Amino acid sequence: MLVDGKNYEGIWLDEDDPAVVKVINQQKLPFSFEISDLRCVEDAWQAIREMVVRGAPLIGVTGAYGMYLATLEINAYTNVPDHLSNAARYLISSRPTAVNLSLSVNYVLKKLLNNIHSKNLSRIALTAARETAEKEKNLCREIGIHGLKLIEDLSKEKEGEPVNILTHCNAGWLACIDYGTALAPVYFAHDRGIPVHVWVDETRPVNQGARLTAWELGKKGVPYTLIPDNTGGYLMQKGMVDVVIVGSDRTSSTGDVVNKIGTYLKALAAHDTNIPFYAAVPSTSIDMQITDAYSEVIIEERPPEEVTMIKGIEDGEMHQVRICPENTIAANWGFDITPARLVTGLITEKGIIRANSEDIKNLFSD
Amino acid sequence: MLVDGKNYEGIWLDEDDPAVVKVINQQKLPFSFEISDLRCVEDAWQAIREMVVRGAPLIGVTGAYGMYLATLEINAYTNVPDHLSNAARYLISSRPTAVNLSLSVNYVLKKLLNNIHSKNLSRIALTAARETAEKEKNLCREIGIHGLKLIEDLSKEKEGEPVNILTHCNAGWLACIDYGTALAPVYFAHDRGIPVHVWVDETRPVNQGARLTAWELGKKGVPYTLIPDNTGGYLMQKGMVDVVIVGSDRTSSTGDVVNKIGTYLKALAAHDTNIPFYAAVPSTSIDMQITDAYSEVIIEERPPEEVTMIKGIEDGEMHQVRICPENTIAANWGFDITPARLVTGLITEKGIIRANSEDIKNLFSD
Repeated sequence: MLVDGKNYEGIWLDEDDPAVVKVINQQKLPFSFEISDLRCVEDAWQAIREMVVRGAPLIGVTGAYGMYLATLEINAYTNVPDHLSNAARYLISSRPTAVNLSLSVNYVLKKLLNNIHSKNLSRIALTAARETAEKEKNLCREIGIHGLKLIEDLSKEKEGEPVNILTHCNAGWLACIDYGTALAPVYFAHDRGIPVHVWVDETRPVNQGARLTAWELGKKGVPYTLIPDNTGGYLMQKGMVDVVIVGSDRTSSTGDVVNKIGTYLKALAAHDTNIPFYAAVPSTSIDMQITDAYSEVIIEERPPEEVTMIKGIEDGEMHQVRICPENTIAANWGFDITPARLVTGLITEKGIIRANSEDIKNLFSD
Repeated sequence: MLVDGKNYEGIWLDEDDPAVVKVINQQKLPFSFEISDLRCVEDAWQAIREMVVRGAPLIGVTGAYGMYLATLEINAYTNVPDHLSNAARYLISSRPTAVNLSLSVNYVLKKLLNNIHSKNLSRIALTAARETAEKEKNLCREIGIHGLKLIEDLSKEKEGEPVNILTHCNAGWLACIDYGTALAPVYFAHDRGIPVHVWVDETRPVNQGARLTAWELGKKGVPYTLIPDNTGGYLMQKGMVDVVIVGSDRTSSTGDVVNKIGTYLKALAAHDTNIPFYAAVPSTSIDMQITDAYSEVIIEERPPEEVTMIKGIEDGEMHQVRICPENTIAANWGFDITPARLVTGLITEKGIIRANSEDIKNLFSD
């Protein structure tokens, strides 16, 4: 995706130094555009944990690159299988909810363990990590194509008026490698001259909407309006939303969508007001092991300071301010579960399917 | 209500200078506890508009005191009826959504117009303003008594475990004169030794929950946990909420509850998870003229800067930081509408009633 004329993806290997993995520091956006270096497994773990990188597809690929960094730590005294297995376990522990992380890390681990006596473990890991990146990118592009059709159809009904899309959190290219999941259809529509307008939920507490989605859409020239997370229900009551499209960190085999906390509330409002609600879900975000998301998915609890403190800019300087009384106790769960019954459809790389066991099973059958 | 050992109400006349009305500056809380002076109609208008005072009951009483200040502006050249009518219209224009404002202002205006030749218009206005304050205070106390019963019943079911109450915005004593509406039952339960715990929605964008409800509950020693507005649905999915209690800025004659934006989303989640949802509604917040809240209630649009900028404290200093890209367009509607079908009951000064025309009509019949 173009940033001020230069093309970026969410993660890449340093051209000059193959021991360094580069990522866009998403904690700093939109206040500054900074690239961070990952030089060891610990760096990758930290980057995921502290949300320097975030978004289910991107943390998966970052985990895969983390396994590449693990191969660089091998020396003559290393028990290689143990080292790699430990690195994989450690990387997966950085964030529990998104399924892509364990999927991608284990993909690279398996490639390595299958070639454990190779002299070129680093090359094998790098190739595998790049494969995960290519795969996520391609899935997003396909999602964009299928979702575009949806927006085109809505646009015909609106006879030239912009299609109003509400989204929660950031499921754009920053969350992925390129294109995005929920935002890919929006970008494709915009590129084709279909008038669109995005309602951007600010997405407290980490403000992925206010910071990242707003920044992405602005860079691309897509019209958007930032709203508090409280606002979407009112907009739907007033007919100001045509469709809700969100991403997903883990979707169960029965179509329950685990996504950024607050998603469930928007799905309820969409259902109550007869507005279609879609989750853009690459098959890498579907966990066929999960039949009951409520009891089986670990919902991450994050630091309370993300709620009580907020980062922003004043007169060109960054500040982190407390927004509540001193010593306030706060709770910070990262995700909620939108039951399949509230989901109009899943936009997958193979087309739009219903959020139920049958359609999801078929998705993996061919 | 006690603040660090001293008793306060939301508004009062300066003991030393009867030309000055005093209010707690709610824009400064919880970072500093400051008292603001209102010396003219314009001051009262500004205080309401800029949310130095807020909460349906308190802005009503502030409007009434504003009429008292209007009487102090009368001189030999004033066309008194015109002056008072204009002042009333002006005060009512400060915020459109809460019904209490026009009710209280018109109450004082009528008293004045009925005694227009009196030499003691200021005394008449002051008495009338104090009547509105006394009335709101008494209504809140009665609401507290009826709501207490609700919490007592839940407490019995929980066998000593705290009753978990989720609330949105601030409908505590700061929003009223004393006690509060939604929080009155909580305070009464706490005073009686019933274990309660409050989930405090931060209530973006103005953060009345994070700033005011958290501060109030903290001062009173009621256990609470601050949560992002996105979190309530998840808590209800997980059985961590026993009851939702909110206030109301205007309730229709059919039981639709207009309240701080985001209330509707919590009502949907409560309904979806079979958790009781109550609005604490003094009869002064019910507008019998309104049968269709969706088309008849003006939903206030407030400055976008309330969304894009946020106030907080860092190292003892106040900052107002921007939390999104520069020049971000934001939208800021103040209220939404919770349809009566999602409301388990209205806690009124006369008891808990159903949110329907019949029960509401009966409320006003005796």
